Amino acid sequence: MTTIGEMGEDALIHLFATRLPNTDAALLGPGDDAAVLSVDGDLVVSSDVLIEGRHFRREWSTAADVGWRAAMQNIVDIDAMGAVPTALQVTLAAPPDTDVKWVLGFADGLREACEPHGVGVVGGDLSGASEIAISVTALGETHGVNPVTRADATPGDSVAVSGPLGAAAAGLALLAAGVGDGLEAIGLFLRPRPLIGAGLEAALRGATAMMDVSDGLLRDAGRIARASQCGIAIDSAAVPVHPAATQAARVLGVAALPWALTGGEDHSLLATFPPGAFLPDGWTLVGVVASDFPGVRVDGAIPDALGWDHFAS
Amino acid sequence: MTTIGEMGEDALIHLFATRLPNTDAALLGPGDDAAVLSVDGDLVVSSDVLIEGRHFRREWSTAADVGWRAAMQNIVDIDAMGAVPTALQVTLAAPPDTDVKWVLGFADGLREACEPHGVGVVGGDLSGASEIAISVTALGETHGVNPVTRADATPGDSVAVSGPLGAAAAGLALLAAGVGDGLEAIGLFLRPRPLIGAGLEAALRGATAMMDVSDGLLRDAGRIARASQCGIAIDSAAVPVHPAATQAARVLGVAALPWALTGGEDHSLLATFPPGAFLPDGWTLVGVVASDFPGVRVDGAIPDALGWDHFAS
Repeated sequence: MTTIGEMGEDALIHLFATRLPNTDAALLGPGDDAAVLSVDGDLVVSSDVLIEGRHFRREWSTAADVGWRAAMQNIVDIDAMGAVPTALQVTLAAPPDTDVKWVLGFADGLREACEPHGVGVVGGDLSGASEIAISVTALGETHGVNPVTRADATPGDSVAVSGPLGAAAAGLALLAAGVGDGLEAIGLFLRPRPLIGAGLEAALRGATAMMDVSDGLLRDAGRIARASQCGIAIDSAAVPVHPAATQAARVLGVAALPWALTGGEDHSLLATFPPGAFLPDGWTLVGVVASDFPGVRVDGAIPDALGWDHFAS
Repeated sequence: MTTIGEMGEDALIHLFATRLPNTDAALLGPGDDAAVLSVDGDLVVSSDVLIEGRHFRREWSTAADVGWRAAMQNIVDIDAMGAVPTALQVTLAAPPDTDVKWVLGFADGLREACEPHGVGVVGGDLSGASEIAISVTALGETHGVNPVTRADATPGDSVAVSGPLGAAAAGLALLAAGVGDGLEAIGLFLRPRPLIGAGLEAALRGATAMMDVSDGLLRDAGRIARASQCGIAIDSAAVPVHPAATQAARVLGVAALPWALTGGEDHSLLATFPPGAFLPDGWTLVGVVASDFPGVRVDGAIPDALGWDHFAS
């Protein structure tokens, strides 16, 4: 094994960069002080962090899984605005004794997640650290379509999600319990597979507010409610539970619905649509925007658990 | 003291965001899945990482110093392309027992560095971690000016730097030795003050290759030489040593020139200009682009120390 400390920065950057995906939007890619991109319309930009031991564990996720997730959770943030993702900036800080193979596997995962969507990795930084810390900034362009924020949900709007929920949380529960080897939920926890492009379609269908479900349906619905100064009523019976979550629940002898309500990291989209709007294919109506209470109610009641906090230990 | 773990993510993000600088380019700022920016011309984007204990120490740098440096070293990367910086994305991972005051001080430093240049912080992410890990992505726009890369230096070109060198390395040496309290070099290590806008001016004057000196003049000149497939001959007597470095050298009883040649983090610009071009005000001629050797020569010889490696321990 060769460690990144032994290999040195310039050689590692060279090896790393050759594995990264390209994008047609790049006028100048990695290797200079900065990359240069063409932007059609306005620029949409979002960033997320992944910290070893908090957002992933090396005994559960391969390096490529970590790269995949780092890319996907940021790409979906661009989609969640109704914009088209074009490029990522990726910074990776890792202990000097990290195997070079891990870093290259991470690049492979970035590429596998990005390439089907025409997204490139155009730059970033590599550094030493005591633990692996990854930061990804995703860039996208609006092509003249108005971005959909969290702030314009209106009482009476329909509340819908773009796909079934709970698979990632179920996969995490299986891994934590050390059971269910090979079950679909584990794969969906390690490599979330939101349908990229669903956000743009929702924007074109008139979505009034939108975000991706990264911290759980209830917590994230609460964010739309707060930003839009309204309430959101969720009908738990309508929430689409992912079949992989149902399968995992059977294995663990627990209920699957709590994962769908409060589990994060599926990265399906949550959006509001004007009353009577046709939902795009694949979306499910789960509730309604209300004016008579703040925050989120589930089946008419204030829920007792909302999701997770990134600083909780 | 209140820790960020006690305060929780949403409350901390709210407090943090209110201290961040704004930019006229932002159509939508922090708080949604993504920010939205207008871009005049093409987009220029660069990222850097700062890790506690490697890039800064909390016993030397205040939180605001760290924020300042995180912003400035990325803003200068945009300037080094000849582009105009407009916005930053900032991710901060920190131990849950970090004082909320530290995080807010960090935001203050970002603001102090950004505001004079009209640069805003438009988004980012906050997370827990075992050590403080900061990642900044800087965004800028070309306004139709062709970006200046590292790859187009041509034999016969003049090699010049935009300001005196060695102050940051001298300041680091003073801090490491525990002497020189209050000397200017320490302040310039903690808060580098490159002249933002120098890169755009150089681009308009026809600079053929350009980068900022972040890892030392010789190492970074070597990067231009490699990218441009040429050699760079540096005349050490011509290299402008920062007066603060000269002062620090006197205190420590050492020579200042090595800091100017191999010390990083001053973030002055290094550029090549066509033979006979008038250098912009403040620039100093330090050498010439050569065709008869690869890499960097100092006073005709291969130097024995080039700079520093980010993975070296």
